[in-house]
Amino acid sequence: MKRIKCTVAYDGTLFNGYQRQPGQRTVQGEIEAALEKICKVPITIHSSGRTDTGVHAYGQVFHFDSEVNMDGTRYVRALNSMLPEDIYVLDSHEVHPEFHSRYHGKIKEYRYKLSLNTYNPMKRHYVYYHRRPLDVAKMREAMTYLLGTHDFTSFCGNLDEINKERTIYRAELLDEEGELTFIFVGNGFLRYMIRIMVGTLIQVGEGRKQPEDIKKILEMRDRRLAGHTAKPQGLYLQRVDYPEELLKPLTDIEE
Amino acid sequence: MKRIKCTVAYDGTLFNGYQRQPGQRTVQGEIEAALEKICKVPITIHSSGRTDTGVHAYGQVFHFDSEVNMDGTRYVRALNSMLPEDIYVLDSHEVHPEFHSRYHGKIKEYRYKLSLNTYNPMKRHYVYYHRRPLDVAKMREAMTYLLGTHDFTSFCGNLDEINKERTIYRAELLDEEGELTFIFVGNGFLRYMIRIMVGTLIQVGEGRKQPEDIKKILEMRDRRLAGHTAKPQGLYLQRVDYPEELLKPLTDIEE
Repeated sequence: MKRIKCTVAYDGTLFNGYQRQPGQRTVQGEIEAALEKICKVPITIHSSGRTDTGVHAYGQVFHFDSEVNMDGTRYVRALNSMLPEDIYVLDSHEVHPEFHSRYHGKIKEYRYKLSLNTYNPMKRHYVYYHRRPLDVAKMREAMTYLLGTHDFTSFCGNLDEINKERTIYRAELLDEEGELTFIFVGNGFLRYMIRIMVGTLIQVGEGRKQPEDIKKILEMRDRRLAGHTAKPQGLYLQRVDYPEELLKPLTDIEE
Repeated sequence: MKRIKCTVAYDGTLFNGYQRQPGQRTVQGEIEAALEKICKVPITIHSSGRTDTGVHAYGQVFHFDSEVNMDGTRYVRALNSMLPEDIYVLDSHEVHPEFHSRYHGKIKEYRYKLSLNTYNPMKRHYVYYHRRPLDVAKMREAMTYLLGTHDFTSFCGNLDEINKERTIYRAELLDEEGELTFIFVGNGFLRYMIRIMVGTLIQVGEGRKQPEDIKKILEMRDRRLAGHTAKPQGLYLQRVDYPEELLKPLTDIEE
């Protein structure tokens, strides 16, 4: 038995989210259907986490176990020959049998793309178009309050989540001539957390909230104090990092 | 009666081409339906030329006549509030009553995007992915033979076209780290002409044809000698230029 780790990019536009659901087109459903053809038995994949409908990925990670006697790197080509054109496997290789995409993801990076420029119909599924000007300096100031370890209850869309403490290591806002990219790197993110942070930062950029309000919103642990949930089409799961020692199969590890 | 000129961008992916056809979703059909709501009478629009299924536009031009007593510039907002999200009107204004989008377009620019990089599912409808390396210097050399006035029979997909002479003023190939953009500026282009030129240039880039073969292919006036028709998703109608004197309404012209 081999445990295989894959990195995958997908366009979330035409999927009903990531997670398998009967009768729905989902990323997980498409990948499992392709793997079943390759491995000749039903295969369940485990991802680093779900993405919602319309959310994209450049670096989603999943793993699965296979009895097929094939080098782990060969799944890239095998899967891409079977998968629809909106999913593309970038990398595959055998990992440690205890590697787990979800439990061992130690760092995740998400990006959110927002444009202040003229609407471009070619980018409508890949960028959120905001019609009013935004004060980028104020938004950057607001983002400094999100850095570090906080209880993110105010920025969480899922009431059932028990532990709402997360750590954000990096929060950056790039501005390339009105094409903004929010970069968030952390040890994990709650459901809708990035989109609620972006929705709140937009309010700061519009002058409807002050940068220092972020501090209070975090302290109050009340979802109603944060902004709306920004639209999904600007959001990208960029990368998931794992501990080095789990990324090699058992046989490669020196005694 | 006012003659109105509009510049429009559209994503060609979900249209059955530009030209109105009964029962099909077309760019012309959508724009005419929106104009009928605004003007309360059926309106026929005239474009600078058709684009084929899957082909995009950043600067398609069309005109129409309207009896509505409304400033020509106001059609931008009126149309965009009615049009689907894959069409966006960039500009509208009243022009000379003899202005004609098709007959007076003196210069057209098309671009074709081709990528030599890793497949990106987010760009699959907007760039053509070529899997083998291409010799960009050889392709650029080949493009010099296309410049000037030629009979483009070998690069024409429409047998019914009578006059196949066209002039290309500019033929350029940008290479931004493997993201190639072909730029063609000319006094007009035959059906599939850009895509056949690109298909032929790809063969040059692969070493299957030599740059100087382009000269012979033009001289022989035989479609079978040129390459295949490159896929539509990389093609963009970028802009159409008109004579200055036709771009102003009659009332603005000094006596």
